[in-house]
Amino acid sequence: MSNTAGQIIRCKAAVAWEAGKPLVIEEVDVAPPQKDEVRLKILYTSLCHTDVYFWEAKGQTPLFPRIFGHEAGGIVESVGEGVTDLQPGDKVLPVFTGECKQCRHCKSEESNMCDLLRINTERGVMIGDGKTRFSKDGQPIYHFLGTSTFSEYTVLHVGSVAKINQAAPLDKVCVLSCGISTGLGATLNVAKPTKGSTVAIFGLGAVGLAAAEGARIAGASRIIGVDLNSNRFEAARNFGCTEFVNPKDYDKPVQQVLAEMTDGGVDRSVECTGNINAMISAFECVHDGWGVAVLVGVPNRDDAFKTNPVNFLSERTLKGTFFGNYKPRTGLPDVVEKYMNKELEVEKFITHQVPFSEINKAFDLMMKGEGLRCIINMEG
Amino acid sequence: MSNTAGQIIRCKAAVAWEAGKPLVIEEVDVAPPQKDEVRLKILYTSLCHTDVYFWEAKGQTPLFPRIFGHEAGGIVESVGEGVTDLQPGDKVLPVFTGECKQCRHCKSEESNMCDLLRINTERGVMIGDGKTRFSKDGQPIYHFLGTSTFSEYTVLHVGSVAKINQAAPLDKVCVLSCGISTGLGATLNVAKPTKGSTVAIFGLGAVGLAAAEGARIAGASRIIGVDLNSNRFEAARNFGCTEFVNPKDYDKPVQQVLAEMTDGGVDRSVECTGNINAMISAFECVHDGWGVAVLVGVPNRDDAFKTNPVNFLSERTLKGTFFGNYKPRTGLPDVVEKYMNKELEVEKFITHQVPFSEINKAFDLMMKGEGLRCIINMEG
Repeated sequence: MSNTAGQIIRCKAAVAWEAGKPLVIEEVDVAPPQKDEVRLKILYTSLCHTDVYFWEAKGQTPLFPRIFGHEAGGIVESVGEGVTDLQPGDKVLPVFTGECKQCRHCKSEESNMCDLLRINTERGVMIGDGKTRFSKDGQPIYHFLGTSTFSEYTVLHVGSVAKINQAAPLDKVCVLSCGISTGLGATLNVAKPTKGSTVAIFGLGAVGLAAAEGARIAGASRIIGVDLNSNRFEAARNFGCTEFVNPKDYDKPVQQVLAEMTDGGVDRSVECTGNINAMISAFECVHDGWGVAVLVGVPNRDDAFKTNPVNFLSERTLKGTFFGNYKPRTGLPDVVEKYMNKELEVEKFITHQVPFSEINKAFDLMMKGEGLRCIINMEG
Repeated sequence: MSNTAGQIIRCKAAVAWEAGKPLVIEEVDVAPPQKDEVRLKILYTSLCHTDVYFWEAKGQTPLFPRIFGHEAGGIVESVGEGVTDLQPGDKVLPVFTGECKQCRHCKSEESNMCDLLRINTERGVMIGDGKTRFSKDGQPIYHFLGTSTFSEYTVLHVGSVAKINQAAPLDKVCVLSCGISTGLGATLNVAKPTKGSTVAIFGLGAVGLAAAEGARIAGASRIIGVDLNSNRFEAARNFGCTEFVNPKDYDKPVQQVLAEMTDGGVDRSVECTGNINAMISAFECVHDGWGVAVLVGVPNRDDAFKTNPVNFLSERTLKGTFFGNYKPRTGLPDVVEKYMNKELEVEKFITHQVPFSEINKAFDLMMKGEGLRCIINMEG
């Protein structure tokens, strides 16, 4: 065990004191892990839209002060009671959703929506005792998604920690713990295009590009990127996209444009925007007889998906996915292996890097829509 | 070859002269099969809702005089030019939708929606030369679904004829050429429940009961029948249904009733009514994480399927099927084998029998909603 095991660790964390206000690097106290918990030293983290969404807190009950962050890589500092499959020094990815390995979902081969540790954006405390492990001068600071990786040290439930290949470079694979795996898995695990097939990707942000990367890995012969922002098309070629459609360039619905380009429809589509009209188009653009559409993007609360049921009866399939159907502890190590054996190219998702002290720059970049992933170096 | 090969055959047929008027048994002339066509002697036929729907012709352009009928069993009388895989004497099932074995759908493992021979309810002629093979005193009589089995002899495209086990009793397996296989295949080929799972069946008519029979064969432990007519529940037990829900008995939506009965939702559901609200309920009643809903029933033209997209994102799947995803020539013989090896019980679907001369009685029974399948004995 490390020298710090069982002790409170005082370290730097980027604290969000108020909704939408710049984070402040503070000295915080991180309590030791309790039963079924693990304390990690975070080495690299990155920023994902979900952090920004809950930091802005425009649509939800605000919960502050809070430490955000959920895409990251680190090493185990110490483990709590009952934790047997992780040891100090293990290289791991923290994950925003967990895998208890005991519930019906974890026991099902088809689901990754663990009953115990499923994503919960409202909870700001540990599930074991309902308390936080972060504090500053005695004031509790809330957790986010059970991960809170914008801190040099953080405490997680063991079910939200994936042990990965010990040779993996954390400054690269840290981006695999959320969006990239979500898009990749949506294609590889759910849409499952066959070699030579045609795939449409709606939305060419990081998740959509990861979905395209999945289609490239699966050997799709045509990968059609659909986005309202044509500036994204050139970069998308690096992720396997062979053709592009900007719905704004046409007077007819994009599903009709795609059907005409592909003799009746694409074999698979993956929707990564969360826009309800894009969802409907993504479904209606797949070929009858065998087409499969997969929804990834999160819609607004009151959106309604609407289509003529005959579109289903002519043998189209519509599925949704959460975290690309990867079970966090069981499946994520395999994604890391895909990178290690050079099947999956991770570097091209990393467009920016900043030291931890400049974490607010990562927020600025994302708010401006610049780049894909910004790596935050905790030791930088 | 038979003595009649190449000759016009004069025989009895039940002709629909006008929409909704009783059929009239007439002596008609049946021309010999042309290129890629087969002439069958029909021994048994049965009545399906689709016959009645187009005979009533309330929603479509009427096409009369016409010979209806598409669920049937018969033997090959003679074959036209180019037909090599069928011979006079072969026992066959005519099918309302075909399999050319050449198009993209036929070559796809996933589709059975043949480009050339896909169901076409508007066409009343042979696709080869655009003419009918039926006439009375020189007046052409239109075909229906490319089958027209309410005739002692009929001509079909070879792609719409399934050669089956020569030992199969046609008075039983004739019902397998449409509705029963549709329901059975919806469960076995599309919903694919695993052993021990829970399945909801919406609509307990012949197709729904066949879907329940599929769930029974698959080893489902709970099969919940849903119907607005509680009189159907007792008979449904013979098809494997273990529990029943009449939505009229509850103040809350049936999807909620089913979720409460099953700790969160059924594993699979199959919708066999075509009612748009039943379709939505059938989708929303499946469990998150792994639930699959399959649509079979044909909706009204302007219906809209509507649901909150989050129901998809929590890993539910919605699929539609046509003819239970069976490829007619390749898959139907296997359904007959399921009967021959006593996996599938066909007898319980056959509730009535009439001689051909009393075919209008079969229409009366169906209009009254009595029984499941009425076998019409062509030689009776």
